[in-house]
Amino acid sequence: MGDTLLPAIGTEILIPACSLVAIAFALLQWLIVSRVKLSPGGLDSAGANSGSGKNGYAEYLIEEEDGLNDHSVVLKCADIQNAIAEGATSFLFTEYRYVGIFMVAFAALIFLFLGSVEGFGTSSQPCKYDPTKLCKPALATAIFSTISFMLGAVTSVVSGFLGMKIATYANARTTLEARKGVGKAFIIAFRSGAVMGFLLAANGLLVLYITINLFKLYYGDDWGGLFESITGYGLGGSSMALFGRVGGGIYTKAADVGADLVGKVERNIPEDDPRNPAVIADNVGDNVGDIAGMGSDLFGSYAESTCAALVVASISSFGINHEFTAMLYPLIVSSVGILVCLITTLFATDFFEIKDVKEIEPALKRQLIISTILMTVGVAIVSWIALPSSFTIFNFGTQKVVKNWQVALCVAVGLWAGLIIGFVTEYYTSNAYSPVQDVADSCRTGAATNVIFGLALGYKSVIIPIFAIAVGIYVSFSFAAMYGIAMAALGMLSTIATGLAIDAYGPISDNAGGIAEMAGMSHRIRERTDALDAAGNTTAAIGKGFAIGSAALVSLALFGAYVSRAGISTVDVLSPKVFIGLLVGAMLPYWFSAMTMKSVGSAALKMVEEVRRQFNTIPGLMEGTAKPDYATCVKISTDASIKEMIPPGALVMLTPLIVGILFGVETLSGVLAGSLVSGVQIAISASNTGGAWDNAKKYIEAGASEHARTLGPKGSDPHKAAVIGDTIGDPLKDTSGPSLNILIKLMAVESLVFARFFATHGGLLFKI
Amino acid sequence: MGDTLLPAIGTEILIPACSLVAIAFALLQWLIVSRVKLSPGGLDSAGANSGSGKNGYAEYLIEEEDGLNDHSVVLKCADIQNAIAEGATSFLFTEYRYVGIFMVAFAALIFLFLGSVEGFGTSSQPCKYDPTKLCKPALATAIFSTISFMLGAVTSVVSGFLGMKIATYANARTTLEARKGVGKAFIIAFRSGAVMGFLLAANGLLVLYITINLFKLYYGDDWGGLFESITGYGLGGSSMALFGRVGGGIYTKAADVGADLVGKVERNIPEDDPRNPAVIADNVGDNVGDIAGMGSDLFGSYAESTCAALVVASISSFGINHEFTAMLYPLIVSSVGILVCLITTLFATDFFEIKDVKEIEPALKRQLIISTILMTVGVAIVSWIALPSSFTIFNFGTQKVVKNWQVALCVAVGLWAGLIIGFVTEYYTSNAYSPVQDVADSCRTGAATNVIFGLALGYKSVIIPIFAIAVGIYVSFSFAAMYGIAMAALGMLSTIATGLAIDAYGPISDNAGGIAEMAGMSHRIRERTDALDAAGNTTAAIGKGFAIGSAALVSLALFGAYVSRAGISTVDVLSPKVFIGLLVGAMLPYWFSAMTMKSVGSAALKMVEEVRRQFNTIPGLMEGTAKPDYATCVKISTDASIKEMIPPGALVMLTPLIVGILFGVETLSGVLAGSLVSGVQIAISASNTGGAWDNAKKYIEAGASEHARTLGPKGSDPHKAAVIGDTIGDPLKDTSGPSLNILIKLMAVESLVFARFFATHGGLLFKI
Repeated sequence: MGDTLLPAIGTEILIPACSLVAIAFALLQWLIVSRVKLSPGGLDSAGANSGSGKNGYAEYLIEEEDGLNDHSVVLKCADIQNAIAEGATSFLFTEYRYVGIFMVAFAALIFLFLGSVEGFGTSSQPCKYDPTKLCKPALATAIFSTISFMLGAVTSVVSGFLGMKIATYANARTTLEARKGVGKAFIIAFRSGAVMGFLLAANGLLVLYITINLFKLYYGDDWGGLFESITGYGLGGSSMALFGRVGGGIYTKAADVGADLVGKVERNIPEDDPRNPAVIADNVGDNVGDIAGMGSDLFGSYAESTCAALVVASISSFGINHEFTAMLYPLIVSSVGILVCLITTLFATDFFEIKDVKEIEPALKRQLIISTILMTVGVAIVSWIALPSSFTIFNFGTQKVVKNWQVALCVAVGLWAGLIIGFVTEYYTSNAYSPVQDVADSCRTGAATNVIFGLALGYKSVIIPIFAIAVGIYVSFSFAAMYGIAMAALGMLSTIATGLAIDAYGPISDNAGGIAEMAGMSHRIRERTDALDAAGNTTAAIGKGFAIGSAALVSLALFGAYVSRAGISTVDVLSPKVFIGLLVGAMLPYWFSAMTMKSVGSAALKMVEEVRRQFNTIPGLMEGTAKPDYATCVKISTDASIKEMIPPGALVMLTPLIVGILFGVETLSGVLAGSLVSGVQIAISASNTGGAWDNAKKYIEAGASEHARTLGPKGSDPHKAAVIGDTIGDPLKDTSGPSLNILIKLMAVESLVFARFFATHGGLLFKI
Repeated sequence: MGDTLLPAIGTEILIPACSLVAIAFALLQWLIVSRVKLSPGGLDSAGANSGSGKNGYAEYLIEEEDGLNDHSVVLKCADIQNAIAEGATSFLFTEYRYVGIFMVAFAALIFLFLGSVEGFGTSSQPCKYDPTKLCKPALATAIFSTISFMLGAVTSVVSGFLGMKIATYANARTTLEARKGVGKAFIIAFRSGAVMGFLLAANGLLVLYITINLFKLYYGDDWGGLFESITGYGLGGSSMALFGRVGGGIYTKAADVGADLVGKVERNIPEDDPRNPAVIADNVGDNVGDIAGMGSDLFGSYAESTCAALVVASISSFGINHEFTAMLYPLIVSSVGILVCLITTLFATDFFEIKDVKEIEPALKRQLIISTILMTVGVAIVSWIALPSSFTIFNFGTQKVVKNWQVALCVAVGLWAGLIIGFVTEYYTSNAYSPVQDVADSCRTGAATNVIFGLALGYKSVIIPIFAIAVGIYVSFSFAAMYGIAMAALGMLSTIATGLAIDAYGPISDNAGGIAEMAGMSHRIRERTDALDAAGNTTAAIGKGFAIGSAALVSLALFGAYVSRAGISTVDVLSPKVFIGLLVGAMLPYWFSAMTMKSVGSAALKMVEEVRRQFNTIPGLMEGTAKPDYATCVKISTDASIKEMIPPGALVMLTPLIVGILFGVETLSGVLAGSLVSGVQIAISASNTGGAWDNAKKYIEAGASEHARTLGPKGSDPHKAAVIGDTIGDPLKDTSGPSLNILIKLMAVESLVFARFFATHGGLLFKI
């Protein structure tokens, strides 16, 4: 046992400093992006050539058809961007209004349930882990949990909203830059992604840091109570993420599927054609679903894994001996992660330049590799200066002696497991490799074989990630019990800023392509944005892979913390109470997926009817002489997603409450374990299947190889089959799949927050 | 504690007597079926009117077009039947040859591994559960396990082969009877199914009974050793079932998908058109996959659940006190089950008559209800006479006192849970209810929405069956620990004869329709067989529901027995060894499904190429003037299925060995639990999704309601979308889905057989 090299005051400076650096860096990127002007005449280059004395862009634009290079294109892009931004803002406000009501109600529930544990008593009680000391009453935990729940929810909302704002600010700018070349467009899209990544990472870290310091004013030395209350932060973040993902996912896919089914399949007009009435809704969807939803989701994962690590640490030697630096080690890891990501970003934006379509995917992949390698060094340093060389970690009732290098290895294992998951995901979803090419090839014999091969691909893509997670769990648990697993999760998420940057870049490019199409720009612009978007599909799948992998680790850590707090000694599969929980828990992801997929299907059907109605009743729409009624389609998506997000949301939020109250803590532990091991598989396979189908379609459309050209062109039978696969994949990869990791995490963190209540008052059915 | 009302001698008479009655009943049914003559001039009615002095069939056939009523139709049917029977026989022989080699090798492995537990010593050892007595050496267990493994395998082969023979004997006869009316055809198909059901049930029971009695000659009073050896019987049965299901499943679906993709989609010729070169292979497939595979599968479940119950009973008071009747209670339950099914069958064949298409499904449903109600009474009686009023059951190291009525309730819970699963399955897969109609309706907007709705339906259909199984597990475990769960599984399977009868009836009707089409008979015959087949799709799904539900219970019982034998006291999810097993186990069904689906896809692609080649190169094929080369297609299916069944088979057979040897008994217990809770869900959803798509297509084709007619007729866009869904569902419902329950069971029974070996020599990796 010993002191840390980094004094407490150093920690107090390091964490906020890193956050502020990240925010400054994000603002700098924003500034660069904003130099692409969306007003006529003010068009300027983001590159170094802007001040070179030329007319600013002429040398880049010569390759474009002259007629289109006028200012009206810029104006059109600005108009469309405004329409998308307005739609997205209005949807998010509607969503937050409904979810806000829920949040207040749920906050009340938290206060009531947790307060009731000691009958709302206000006197301090002997501590659970050290009865010689006095700890703050359950009522305090109830109050502070409620506050941190609200804070987590608000931070999540801000994260999602900021992300959306940035993305809708960047999309038209990416379109305009695409006129200059694919590299320029890439940089703008990527920089915008980085704005989001760094703002979110810094925001999450800073709020948590401030909250801990404020709560400490009340709790003083009762760190067990302090960090028990902090878990509410994770719950708040994940609850909002759930509704964000589900609502946004339904919104985006209802619009996308509806637009495609009538536009591409029935009317034979291109994707994002401005004549399609659902096209604005579709583009809005990318921003509220893929951007805002994902932002909330990853923020939730980050908040939860930090809380899980903190809550275990608080009852380990760090907490008992009040070692402030060691206690905040999880936050220091994240702080250093931000710095690492900052350096990594420079590799994409400044050290190298993208000149060709083929360089995009390698550049993004390089981001993953660089950040992982740098972070490995960072972790080693952090563990050396911020942890004592030897200490003890709470392990289900006993204290396990752990060395600092062991914890460093836990973080590194998570980090590298994430990289492996990323690579496997890339292999299975990028059209540069054989799996997607095989799926594309199977389109020769029609949609049925395409679907069969796609589903098989998704199932197969689960194997290696699961082994990677399993090894991560075994190694990190062996070294540092549940603390190790929480740290492995944080390790996987330590490069979250880079992860978010490359993830957000996809929907921005997707939108940019849509704006190019709607503004009537050259098909060559569209080809460039399509190339960006194809890489974006892969990075989106990689991002989902990270999200799911980290969710699995986070949930396990939360599960461990829950079990400790609920006072369960073993979770024995052979006990029927646990086993039925396991069985039912494994079923929940199916139930949830059925709900969300059906929701997308029904909402899409409504959208199809509306789009058909407009094509049939608005004269001149197909000829392009009349404008469609975009607003009605936006309203259909909004109404459907608000209405349809409630049942799946309720399923996830109520299950732990119902199981805990009626069946007790043991069955609930079974439910958590079951939903974890089953949900991870469906989530990974759904994301990868959808990504593969999307890219198989893009592979045929792009016709970049001999093989691809035998399957195309657009409109051929294999292409039609590929479009069907892509449409089926939409709800899988953007609604049900990515929501599942929230299901897993949220049920775990909710159980953790209510653990004491369930242990005190739960299990009514078995008591009778 | 006390004696049973039924003396040992009564048991010795009852079990073989019931088996022989069942065999006699099966032969009687066969006799009735055989009265439909397949030679010209000898055509005779199966009904009572055959001897009435009329010309034998004139009064029934008037509704048929005259030109088709000649003897050439009968001859044609006989020819086609022969071709199908020959193809099926030849495939099964090829399959058995390959699997035979595997079986011998695996038998050698069993002998070596189990013999090595005590170093091949030949001296008796102190018993594990009663060290004052001497038990037979591990070498004896090795020898007798090997023998019972071989016996189980052979019995499984015989079951599958017999089933196939009966089905190929009955299919053309059903076609011919369909000329007289839908009721007549139904009875012939149903009686043939009954032949299979009763022969299999009796066969399984009788072989097991004889084996026990023969082994007892050596083992004498060492019942623990005796019934430990008997578990080899279950392993043998399930190993064969695995290859039967997977091989047959790939065979049937490669042919089916291949035939449909070219015939229905590209060439626009009807299903089963004789011009399609893959049509014979398709019909052969129904018999080797759906009939032989399913026969082996249910036999395996039956053998395993009996073994699980016996092995627990042998270390309970029954075994310790040598109460022969109580010990054989599981076999007595099955014996009475056969009698109950016999009476139930009469309700379908003699007490009521089917006159209309609409009566088919209710008649089949009535079979389920009647058998369940009668069996409930039967169970009560059996439990009263064959069990002492009070006894003890082994429960992980302790002995639990159990009353006979409690065990009766366990069996009844399983029985009724099976009925609930059956009803839910029917609701989700029959086109009489809204779920399938909704799926059909979604075809309006194309194949994509059809697939999305179909997948969602499958996921949703999991919910109630899982709750039913969970309640079954909780109740039966509470009453009688793992013995209760094994008895609940046997309860679900106690009406296996009826289950098999209504299950086998489906493929027979399917084949009958194929034969009618190929023989160029009237489309009205086809309509009748289609109606039978639509009901058959539902019953097939119900059959799969039973198979999966019982597999879940059986596996849990086997898992319990494994844990006891491996000497594990708790399977703690919080132990990382167990948790990584759980996670990887939950992944296995995905890996397995990926393999089998990809296999079907690749084999189907080969089939498509061959069928296309024949259409393109054989002049006059489309015009019907030239005959296709059926044999090549049969060969493609045969070769593909033999080659492709090896990797998934190896995955299932090797996983327990590898995990047990390298990671040890704890991780293996995690793997078993994980694959169980995850596999059940995929299996149910895959079967139901496939069944629903098939019936959505049939719903549109039949056009029986106003709504259905707006979607049709054949060849309309919604119908084409429905055909795509049907094709995707094929590998899900007939290959990957139903194989999964074997995966679950087989890994459990294999672990049980090798438990002692793993406990002694396993876990190498963690030892290092």
